[in-house]
Amino acid sequence: MTHDAQQDRVDDLVTGMTLDEKLSQLVGLWVGADATGAGVAPHQSEMTADGLGWSEVIRGGLGQLTRPYGSAPVDPAAGARSLAASQAQIVAANRFGIPALVHEECLAGFAAWGATAYPVPLSWGASFDPDLVEAMAARIGASMRSAGVHQGLAPVLDVTRDYRWGRTEETIGEDPYLVGTVGTAYVRGLEGSGVVATLKHFAGYSASRAGRNLAPVSIGRRELADVVLPPFEMAVRDGGARSVMHSYAELDGVPSAADAGLLTTLLRDTWGFTGTVVADYFGIRFLQTLHGVAGSEAEAAALALAAGVDVELPSVHCYGLPLRDALARGEVDEALVDRALRRVLTQKAELGLLDPDWSPQAHAEPVLDDEQSRDLALRLAREAIVLLSNPTGALPLRPGARVALVGPLADDPMAMLGCYSFPAHVGVHHPEAGLGIEIPTVLDGLRAAGLDVTHARGCDVTDQDRDGFAEAVAAARDADVCVVAVGDRAGLFGRGTSGEGCDATDLHLPGVQADLVRALLGTGTPVVLLLLTGRPYAIAPLAADAAAVVQTFFPGQRGGQAIADVLTGVVNPSGRLPVSIPADASGQPGTYLSAPLGRRSGVSSVDPTAAFPFGHGLSYTSFSWSARATSEVWPTDGDATVEVLVTNTGERAGADVVQLYLHDPVAQVTRPVVRLVGYARVELEPGDSALVTFTVPADVTAFTGLSGTRIVEPGDVELRVARSSADGSDALELRLTGELREVDHTRRLTTGVAVTALHAMEVTA
Amino acid sequence: MTHDAQQDRVDDLVTGMTLDEKLSQLVGLWVGADATGAGVAPHQSEMTADGLGWSEVIRGGLGQLTRPYGSAPVDPAAGARSLAASQAQIVAANRFGIPALVHEECLAGFAAWGATAYPVPLSWGASFDPDLVEAMAARIGASMRSAGVHQGLAPVLDVTRDYRWGRTEETIGEDPYLVGTVGTAYVRGLEGSGVVATLKHFAGYSASRAGRNLAPVSIGRRELADVVLPPFEMAVRDGGARSVMHSYAELDGVPSAADAGLLTTLLRDTWGFTGTVVADYFGIRFLQTLHGVAGSEAEAAALALAAGVDVELPSVHCYGLPLRDALARGEVDEALVDRALRRVLTQKAELGLLDPDWSPQAHAEPVLDDEQSRDLALRLAREAIVLLSNPTGALPLRPGARVALVGPLADDPMAMLGCYSFPAHVGVHHPEAGLGIEIPTVLDGLRAAGLDVTHARGCDVTDQDRDGFAEAVAAARDADVCVVAVGDRAGLFGRGTSGEGCDATDLHLPGVQADLVRALLGTGTPVVLLLLTGRPYAIAPLAADAAAVVQTFFPGQRGGQAIADVLTGVVNPSGRLPVSIPADASGQPGTYLSAPLGRRSGVSSVDPTAAFPFGHGLSYTSFSWSARATSEVWPTDGDATVEVLVTNTGERAGADVVQLYLHDPVAQVTRPVVRLVGYARVELEPGDSALVTFTVPADVTAFTGLSGTRIVEPGDVELRVARSSADGSDALELRLTGELREVDHTRRLTTGVAVTALHAMEVTA
Repeated sequence: MTHDAQQDRVDDLVTGMTLDEKLSQLVGLWVGADATGAGVAPHQSEMTADGLGWSEVIRGGLGQLTRPYGSAPVDPAAGARSLAASQAQIVAANRFGIPALVHEECLAGFAAWGATAYPVPLSWGASFDPDLVEAMAARIGASMRSAGVHQGLAPVLDVTRDYRWGRTEETIGEDPYLVGTVGTAYVRGLEGSGVVATLKHFAGYSASRAGRNLAPVSIGRRELADVVLPPFEMAVRDGGARSVMHSYAELDGVPSAADAGLLTTLLRDTWGFTGTVVADYFGIRFLQTLHGVAGSEAEAAALALAAGVDVELPSVHCYGLPLRDALARGEVDEALVDRALRRVLTQKAELGLLDPDWSPQAHAEPVLDDEQSRDLALRLAREAIVLLSNPTGALPLRPGARVALVGPLADDPMAMLGCYSFPAHVGVHHPEAGLGIEIPTVLDGLRAAGLDVTHARGCDVTDQDRDGFAEAVAAARDADVCVVAVGDRAGLFGRGTSGEGCDATDLHLPGVQADLVRALLGTGTPVVLLLLTGRPYAIAPLAADAAAVVQTFFPGQRGGQAIADVLTGVVNPSGRLPVSIPADASGQPGTYLSAPLGRRSGVSSVDPTAAFPFGHGLSYTSFSWSARATSEVWPTDGDATVEVLVTNTGERAGADVVQLYLHDPVAQVTRPVVRLVGYARVELEPGDSALVTFTVPADVTAFTGLSGTRIVEPGDVELRVARSSADGSDALELRLTGELREVDHTRRLTTGVAVTALHAMEVTA
Repeated sequence: MTHDAQQDRVDDLVTGMTLDEKLSQLVGLWVGADATGAGVAPHQSEMTADGLGWSEVIRGGLGQLTRPYGSAPVDPAAGARSLAASQAQIVAANRFGIPALVHEECLAGFAAWGATAYPVPLSWGASFDPDLVEAMAARIGASMRSAGVHQGLAPVLDVTRDYRWGRTEETIGEDPYLVGTVGTAYVRGLEGSGVVATLKHFAGYSASRAGRNLAPVSIGRRELADVVLPPFEMAVRDGGARSVMHSYAELDGVPSAADAGLLTTLLRDTWGFTGTVVADYFGIRFLQTLHGVAGSEAEAAALALAAGVDVELPSVHCYGLPLRDALARGEVDEALVDRALRRVLTQKAELGLLDPDWSPQAHAEPVLDDEQSRDLALRLAREAIVLLSNPTGALPLRPGARVALVGPLADDPMAMLGCYSFPAHVGVHHPEAGLGIEIPTVLDGLRAAGLDVTHARGCDVTDQDRDGFAEAVAAARDADVCVVAVGDRAGLFGRGTSGEGCDATDLHLPGVQADLVRALLGTGTPVVLLLLTGRPYAIAPLAADAAAVVQTFFPGQRGGQAIADVLTGVVNPSGRLPVSIPADASGQPGTYLSAPLGRRSGVSSVDPTAAFPFGHGLSYTSFSWSARATSEVWPTDGDATVEVLVTNTGERAGADVVQLYLHDPVAQVTRPVVRLVGYARVELEPGDSALVTFTVPADVTAFTGLSGTRIVEPGDVELRVARSSADGSDALELRLTGELREVDHTRRLTTGVAVTALHAMEVTA
């Protein structure tokens, strides 16, 4: 259909539908695909409307099918048949022949049994490689399309504010520029494959009090505008995201699901978003049950609908009978229903779901874990590994070294996965089904690399049992080097130490793992501390005595090999920290992005300086830089150009990440001491150079001024070409000149990057 | 002078002064009284303007003299003579014969050598006794007046938000109603004595990130309006405070010293404040040096003056030459100088400092530590001691018991004092001067009570030395009961574990004190845990095994006796917690005042429920309650009346604190699960009863609605007559009826309390 034809069709439907038919389009039903191909079935009995059977629920239509693949392990081919059969029933059961829009989780891969499990978002951030993340998302999208799924509930664009929060692993990091650029790349990849990307959680969820899941958020309008919102704005405008999910949280007393200022005035009227706003699961009902801003399900429905939540997910608790009754009582204007309906139907039209010839395709073989996908997972895992310290060159391990591989995560496939990977999210409830994919462990990886490895577990991630310490210590004593793999167990709601609902009160390694590391350090054998974690931990006292420290977050299905590649030197590490590693386990909240008084100061006995700063990461080779600005004058309506000549001065190929930070010493309001405004990942052979050219629009210096609008303010600033957020060695002084300018929401806030390779001969010539 | 005559005099002065004379009135000079009576002298050489000598600085006049008694130990009579001599010089040195207004710190007592040291504000909060706090403040004011001081830099009205903050000891607690009512009582007492009270720190200082002193504050307008501002509003309107000090902190990027919305629009235009706004020390210069919102001292001066800071303290860094130069360059409007000048001179006129017959009185003997003051200190210390647990009746100690008194604070006079008491604030730098007052220790108190006490120190507050454990354990083993006194050392900027700049990262007891307590618990001898702390600590694991737990905060000069009185039963404890005692040492920020999702919830693995809730406190006797509301209907423009019949059902005289909490289950915005809206302290003989009548204006239910204004919203609410914030046993269901009302800033937000004594015979009759 042409765009006009689509709009005509939508108009006809809005006019022709009964109220019940309209409401049916605004709700979802949580189902699970059936391995027999007999049709999807409600995932939880309570999800059906008032105990109605499947055929009654779909009478009149159905807006969305929720997680057909994500409710239980099911062979994807059978799942696709099951889904197709159900879609045929839905089409047949409503007068207009409209199928359901099918959504699934897909954060670090399509959340289906047997789909590739990619590294978690913290690892995407660590790669500083938006192109690779875009390629991954495109592959995830293709896989979902092949399985009949139209919408993916990703990416998470929350900017980390408190490391205690369990969902830190789902974020791309603590900097809005990094989250925005990498997140937008993910959106481009997913949308480019034809799958609707869903930006979440809009907005402020990650700033919950004391890092507790869903706890109230204390935040002002300026911090919201300058830290929390930019990634969403970028992903809407530059990424073309077609869906947004409200956050569970409240900001200063107002739950996002009831916040018209956020979901309508800002998102649509200001940013121009035209897609759908969907509820986070049960989030509309939470307005009544958890927030107390609605006295009934009908009031909750009325609030959310008026605010701009178009689709209730995954259920019909509020937009079903309660909303119908409220409409009947005249408490809700039907025009609000039509507003949401029009958005839903427009999206269905764009997806082809209203095409006359649409038919559910019973895909015989969805593409879930092919070679191309696994290779992408490996590439990203390799790029995301961060070498934190290596003072004596203990890494790479020398060939022939006798290695003691110790720790609860040394030989555990689940250690590679975040909470939203299928095996950790759903598979854990169905151990009989197995993992569905091959996940080589660190032990597998090192043995495949041909190393002489002794393995001892030492302890568990969470419990207090030290009985295994002796074996681990003995193994370390007998080895040339000990690699100890410690960190988190990802899980949902108390089933893990990281993940949704798995919040921490402090940043000590869980359980007795730190004691295990201390015991190993006591052997005198050099210890490589390998961290597989969903958040940064305060490991500085251990790191100080370790021969090397490697931070991997959750590296995904191919993480075992990627880690082995880095430990053995097959791959030169190039990841950079997307979060700081704090020095103190209890100094939260606190990220690098802070005004002077939020950092070290003489007025408090507490020094919040990080042990390893945001952006830090080492290499097995060395790089030299030469940086200059082409002009010291930077018009407030123009660009600054910064050129950095990067040379690999070592003897191995490797990638460097050139980071560009803004330091704005005097402004109308307090400003972060530094914040990231650009970066470039540069791969270089030994001796080779590259010229990195950053083109920085003055718009990237913008902030929310006293008046509440976003402005570029003239004055002296520094652009720091830096190896981390704590590196001030290459500071270029520039002067923003001209008028103070307002920066509206049509402006891009990204720095242009060009990398020109210069081979050794050219530079010396 | 009459009011009109005062205004005429002020008008004449504003018209007649040169610019230099005007600016002289807007600055202070930090001086110290001279023990020889030879005149005050600059306290720090950098405080003098550009290295000028005293006679040059005071030429043209001087706005304020800063802390003449608080810079070094000086005999008060000599100090008064020194001050009077300097005032005579100042009067003589300016054309108009205007003396300086003299200010001093006075939080827990006039901060002068030899003045009575009262309990700290957390103890005032624990007393739930505004009348006694008012009497104390009146006594403090009388003492200051007798020494020639006009303004006191107290009270602190910050509402505690994060226990890690070092200045928690200076707050009255974590509830705005408690802080507002007790703080207003303090203001009434001080102002009633003729001394200008200074409300600080306006506003939001206590909510600094991670509890670090001066760190940025993430806060929204609603939380600010509903939690942070009410105590200031109450103290301005109901207390008649004549001065306000800006906070060092920034709120959402805007430092308070540069915030016209706060210092002028809200404070003056909305609340009707007419006094002076003074700078927190060096706070104007901090706009340049710490906040980066000014590029020079002149810009800092211009920002602060425009925002509404009338007087720079304690120095002339910005309002001296830099402001004069900015005026000369036309960058600042002289009308802003006149605005501040008028306020300063008006206040001087009200204080009699412009009277033709004013003369510095060389008071021979300021009244500093008389019997009446010491008695007030004792009474307040007694009322403020909180008995947290006493499961087996270990307290009161039985007569003749052999007591082991252990711990670093058992025999330490400084353990009684907060950071702003003279000996801890200033005296610590002058150990040769001694304490200046008698401060009996806990050991002194118990021995004076005639107990058989063995003493062992056990360990220090802060260091890691465990060498004294053995002696302490031995003493405990040989005793019938062990009392262990642990907690904080108050000090400034790293000299202590509590106090200004002494922030904590977690809420473990400092040093090895918890280990000492554990060692004592291991002896089997019943252990009474006595906490002398400036913040609540996570002592639940110790409390679980202790025979009794007593929390005293810093009880002041007579604390040793008060503690002995409670331990021996001479006094029946009646204090209630003004802060919660958290269960976890690292779950901050978090106070009891939180919406449902900020408290225990199924969506996070972390349970923030307190070990001992706000409002908790036990007695040696028992009380029964019978509560009713006289009507279930509560007009939104009327009062609810709650009657509580309280009976002392035990065998000792004692005081109960009846607390009234509001539970508002459904509102426009999220609301705290409960919040304090009234309380009554009731003293009863055994068998006696009292009828407590609370008259609760609907205005106290008000909150900041979606529109940003303060409203009373109709609907069902509960008034809980409770023993603590966690007590929901006596819930009275009421219905607010009528129109939704806006509550403007002329309305009082306090509950009326009447207590009618009913003797045993009356009740039974």
